[in-house]
Amino acid sequence: TFLITFHPKYAQNFGLVDKPVFTDVPTPITEPFKWEYTNMKKLLYKLGDILSTDEAERRQVQLVNPSLKKFPYLGAIAISPTIFAAIQLVKKGEVAPSHHHSPNAFRFILEAPEDGAYTVVNGKRLIMHRGDLVLTPSYAWHDHRNEGNGDVIWLDGLDAPLVWYLGAIFFEDYFKKYKRSLQEITETEKENVLKYGNGMLPEFEREDSYDPLYIYPYSRARETLFRIKENSNEMPAEGYVMRYINPNNGKDIFQTMASKIRLISPKSKTKKIRKTEHIIFMPVEGECTLKLDNIEYNLKENDIAIVPPWEAYEIVNNNDKDCILFSYSDEPIFKSFGLFRSEINE
Amino acid sequence: TFLITFHPKYAQNFGLVDKPVFTDVPTPITEPFKWEYTNMKKLLYKLGDILSTDEAERRQVQLVNPSLKKFPYLGAIAISPTIFAAIQLVKKGEVAPSHHHSPNAFRFILEAPEDGAYTVVNGKRLIMHRGDLVLTPSYAWHDHRNEGNGDVIWLDGLDAPLVWYLGAIFFEDYFKKYKRSLQEITETEKENVLKYGNGMLPEFEREDSYDPLYIYPYSRARETLFRIKENSNEMPAEGYVMRYINPNNGKDIFQTMASKIRLISPKSKTKKIRKTEHIIFMPVEGECTLKLDNIEYNLKENDIAIVPPWEAYEIVNNNDKDCILFSYSDEPIFKSFGLFRSEINE
Amino acid sequence: TFLITFHPKYAQNFGLVDKPVFTDVPTPITEPFKWEYTNMKKLLYKLGDILSTDEAERRQVQLVNPSLKKFPYLGAIAISPTIFAAIQLVKKGEVAPSHHHSPNAFRFILEAPEDGAYTVVNGKRLIMHRGDLVLTPSYAWHDHRNEGNGDVIWLDGLDAPLVWYLGAIFFEDYFKKYKRSLQEITETEKENVLKYGNGMLPEFEREDSYDPLYIYPYSRARETLFRIKENSNEMPAEGYVMRYINPNNGKDIFQTMASKIRLISPKSKTKKIRKTEHIIFMPVEGECTLKLDNIEYNLKENDIAIVPPWEAYEIVNNNDKDCILFSYSDEPIFKSFGLFRSEINE
Amino acid sequence: TFLITFHPKYAQNFGLVDKPVFTDVPTPITEPFKWEYTNMKKLLYKLGDILSTDEAERRQVQLVNPSLKKFPYLGAIAISPTIFAAIQLVKKGEVAPSHHHSPNAFRFILEAPEDGAYTVVNGKRLIMHRGDLVLTPSYAWHDHRNEGNGDVIWLDGLDAPLVWYLGAIFFEDYFKKYKRSLQEITETEKENVLKYGNGMLPEFEREDSYDPLYIYPYSRARETLFRIKENSNEMPAEGYVMRYINPNNGKDIFQTMASKIRLISPKSKTKKIRKTEHIIFMPVEGECTLKLDNIEYNLKENDIAIVPPWEAYEIVNNNDKDCILFSYSDEPIFKSFGLFRSEINE
Ligand SMILES: [Fe+2]
Ligand SMILES: [Fe+2]
Ligand SMILES: [Fe+2]
Ligand SMILES: [Fe+2]
Ligand SMILES: [Fe+2]
Ligand SMILES: [Fe+2]
Ligand SMILES: [Fe+2]
Ligand SMILES: [Fe+2]
Repeated sequence: TFLITFHPKYAQNFGLVDKPVFTDVPTPITEPFKWEYTNMKKLLYKLGDILSTDEAERRQVQLVNPSLKKFPYLGAIAISPTIFAAIQLVKKGEVAPSHHHSPNAFRFILEAPEDGAYTVVNGKRLIMHRGDLVLTPSYAWHDHRNEGNGDVIWLDGLDAPLVWYLGAIFFEDYFKKYKRSLQEITETEKENVLKYGNGMLPEFEREDSYDPLYIYPYSRARETLFRIKENSNEMPAEGYVMRYINPNNGKDIFQTMASKIRLISPKSKTKKIRKTEHIIFMPVEGECTLKLDNIEYNLKENDIAIVPPWEAYEIVNNNDKDCILFSYSDEPIFKSFGLFRSEINE
Repeated sequence: TFLITFHPKYAQNFGLVDKPVFTDVPTPITEPFKWEYTNMKKLLYKLGDILSTDEAERRQVQLVNPSLKKFPYLGAIAISPTIFAAIQLVKKGEVAPSHHHSPNAFRFILEAPEDGAYTVVNGKRLIMHRGDLVLTPSYAWHDHRNEGNGDVIWLDGLDAPLVWYLGAIFFEDYFKKYKRSLQEITETEKENVLKYGNGMLPEFEREDSYDPLYIYPYSRARETLFRIKENSNEMPAEGYVMRYINPNNGKDIFQTMASKIRLISPKSKTKKIRKTEHIIFMPVEGECTLKLDNIEYNLKENDIAIVPPWEAYEIVNNNDKDCILFSYSDEPIFKSFGLFRSEINE
Repeated sequence: TFLITFHPKYAQNFGLVDKPVFTDVPTPITEPFKWEYTNMKKLLYKLGDILSTDEAERRQVQLVNPSLKKFPYLGAIAISPTIFAAIQLVKKGEVAPSHHHSPNAFRFILEAPEDGAYTVVNGKRLIMHRGDLVLTPSYAWHDHRNEGNGDVIWLDGLDAPLVWYLGAIFFEDYFKKYKRSLQEITETEKENVLKYGNGMLPEFEREDSYDPLYIYPYSRARETLFRIKENSNEMPAEGYVMRYINPNNGKDIFQTMASKIRLISPKSKTKKIRKTEHIIFMPVEGECTLKLDNIEYNLKENDIAIVPPWEAYEIVNNNDKDCILFSYSDEPIFKSFGLFRSEINE
Repeated sequence: TFLITFHPKYAQNFGLVDKPVFTDVPTPITEPFKWEYTNMKKLLYKLGDILSTDEAERRQVQLVNPSLKKFPYLGAIAISPTIFAAIQLVKKGEVAPSHHHSPNAFRFILEAPEDGAYTVVNGKRLIMHRGDLVLTPSYAWHDHRNEGNGDVIWLDGLDAPLVWYLGAIFFEDYFKKYKRSLQEITETEKENVLKYGNGMLPEFEREDSYDPLYIYPYSRARETLFRIKENSNEMPAEGYVMRYINPNNGKDIFQTMASKIRLISPKSKTKKIRKTEHIIFMPVEGECTLKLDNIEYNLKENDIAIVPPWEAYEIVNNNDKDCILFSYSDEPIFKSFGLFRSEINE
């Protein structure tokens, strides 16, 4: 219970910790890594065979960061100290019962039937299509139902590792409270986007959650990116990049996670940049290469890679086709504490 | 230079002021009033004859609040102590040269050619249609050009009376600075709405103004109102009401003025309410009646009425048609100083 | 009710307003002016003879800005469009009954008996001494009692002209509500300063007002100014200047008024500066000269002068003694609306 | 790199994690624990013998939370997932060279010579006495020097575990940058308190750090607690409790850590409460008992105990003497993310 020691900067010298704590620049516990979608999907369907229909909620392949494995509990399932990433499958006809919890979650849709797969968030039925971003903010009730003519697969993003690390997980089943496992539907994605996603806010029946806009359709993001490419200049180290925002305050979708989507022009590359954040990239259209100092990752559609804090990277698009790149990170956490730093390699 | 006097509450007793300053509840210097569009338009076209084409900028009919006339300077042109309201006409083929100033301004479009009448705000060409809300935030450069096949008429809203009262008017001609009277156009309303009005914000080339969303198209507002009417419950004293918001912060379009649009269902009326704000109403579609304690105003399309602070009103729609009602007020001023109060007469 | 007119910039040309509204730089409705304490005090005592003891509350000499006189109502009693300034006398043995109102008020004590003259704010008994700043924030109950062995005289500062102009005055007598004219005393200035003025805030029994620190003793301000003079460098256009702050948020004492105190070293002068604010200066110790472009004011102890927005001034201390200068202004109003500008003449 | 799994709620069932992640209420990775000062001090002096004078900076006894030991790196030295706590000794005549870093740190002084032991923060010389709280905010340069006639011992509090977990540690030696190991002294604690701790803020030479008030003297805290005890009512679950605040914004001293000091009256006890925060208690005067559900800790002066999130506790003072209790916690982290919850057991 004591450590006869010294300033943390020197503890390592005495074999007390295996790594110094106070270093000149960050030495993150996370390493860069890449996961290929073809593999993930294969595993997901293997899981699809094992788990019965009423276990749909659990049918997830977690993307585990290898360097975190040595951490008890969390290390087995986290992609970064703060973030979960998982691929989830809900088969045609399945439902996942409603619940809510203190962690924030979003899903970014990878494959979806033409219509009929939806998430219900606080009573809003949100039909999901490829590329849509769907939020379930902290304590929002959510269930999933696939009434479409095919399976739905999405990327799940949660701040659960952080919330868990802090000791602040609260979880509640809808059924336990309301004696039914699915919510009643009162509105659809249409009303939600009209009320919160059009530069206006309703004065009445305001959603009681941090971000009230529960769905950011891909059709909007895509149109924006291709349109602005015509008249605007991209950011040298970022491309043409749009940040998903919370209409209540113009800030990020969550207090813990930010999400962006960008276009990298054909035959172009960004300047090298590094930031204090854990950032996760995934191409939605086209391909690109993420070049780090010691490794590079070719990313095809739905492939996923993570870049740790203060690791420099450039994004290269060697192809003849635009690359639309989705990303999310824990940037807001760093900004909340005055810890955010960023540096472009000119 | 002195007033041998007493507590302001009692100054009136001694003939020193004509009205007590400290009263139990507000006794505003503004009175309720109504202006009919048919009259305003007639005057506007009379002015259209007097003023030549290159004076288009000046072709405005100011709505002057009668009770303010006794105020020097400002009283001759203000609708409230804080707000200007004017009807402006820019004829087919005319242009109004570019300038900028410290007051915030918006225009709400009343009549417009099918296409071709536009305002340019910081280089963005914003084609205007009936019902659109177009902003020129503080210090944004703006000019107007009508290349359409008909005249354009709009309602101008400015916080100039407040800014002037405070002694903070700054004004600059574009020509003086750049030796040309019109701005170069770099983007259109399309990009502006995509970048700022879709639940996302660009990381690059951010508009350098308080509210970067320069146009709120009526098509969006209208669709929203009719859609939400189906599934939501209106506010008892407000109807189905949407507030135009600044995507940068989720607050009002300006630090001095708020703007809303609402739907009042046929054969319905709101509960009586009073607030500390100067509120200006104008029907965009349908008709309604504004009932105050001692007077009532029937408002047809484009008719305008003002309700002073702490004056109770109810909105009545006796017709078979929905009434879409645009309004703007100085509510944010009261909120900035902790002076906002509101009371519903149950 | 209409003004057949034009852009406000040109209305003057047509005799519609006597002064243009849109000018390149501000043309405030307020003019610079100076009031001498010896005159004010003489008038105050004349008033002291006229008004009986139970009218103490009303024994004020208002400082009226001559250029505002043409404004109805308010013009007769305001020093700026936003601010009241008055000298008030409460004689030995008198009391002024309790009330509260929406305007914010402070008093800066000019003369006081050794002990025993106090203001009660929300139950806190605040004994007042020369140089103390005592707040009665919006809606805080306040009464005054002089149980000392001499008269007390203070400078009253209120944002009532603004609140009145906006139509947001609310006023309530304590007696009407509680059937007694004076509040019960629960704490003293000592507890108030310990709780809110020492870099800490109580978790319990928090004052329910914007600024909970009701008294800023002069002893603290004075010690600070003389002490920092030793080790710090003054601001070229400001001197050694401390801003009174609200411990709840680190901002100004009120949302409408800021207050500062500064030291101008002997035989020194500040650089010329102009700002968009109405600023009122009063020496507490020593003397100084306020040099404007067309006039200069020699200010002795308790003399008061006002500088309108965008009027350049320098502060000159030609004497061998430090000058401690109290000031207050409506700076926060300008900052709330993005209207604050400042320019140093290098 | 993959986890063929399920919803995190069920991962444990499959042996993939040793503990469920989604639990109904928090199951913190931190356990309650207590450290006695007599033991800590003994160890500290043992260390004092081993380490030479020029290693003073390193002479710390870390308080390690036993349940964190299984965490690599950090687990060996942290008291909570977010906080370091250590007892540090700087002997008479020693100095610890200057440096700065991204983590925030404070020290609460336990033993000090009458005068002469000081920390220098950004050039301010802060002489330390028992009970003083001294801050070194993120990136503030700091060194320690003991020129007094006895040793100085303090409790160190840092947010380094969180910063390290996030991968955001930056560290820099003063010597490397400036070729000298100690800062030049420009001001003392006296000026610092006058400028930032008296309800005012300087307009000039503002400290460039989150919290500019670097020292909160115990004399002030103590006087406040004993004084308010006379007239105020304590909070049922908290006692008479003052929060140290940042004068710049009225918020906590750091964005990651809050600090409070409270008085528990003789023969009294608080209501049971639980909160989502890691809170560390230490009596400064008197004794008290911390009663948790399954354990209770008697705390003498300088004994330290930690309570994990959502663990209920009551504070009991069975003695005839007031107990002054210092505490610090990571409450602001939970509040930043909307994760703060608190519950009183009525
Ligand atoms: Fe899910
Ligand atoms: Fe969930
Ligand atoms: Fe205009
Ligand atoms: Fe204009
Ligand atoms: Fe008064
Ligand atoms: Fe009053
Ligand atoms: Fe240290
Ligand atoms: Fe340090």
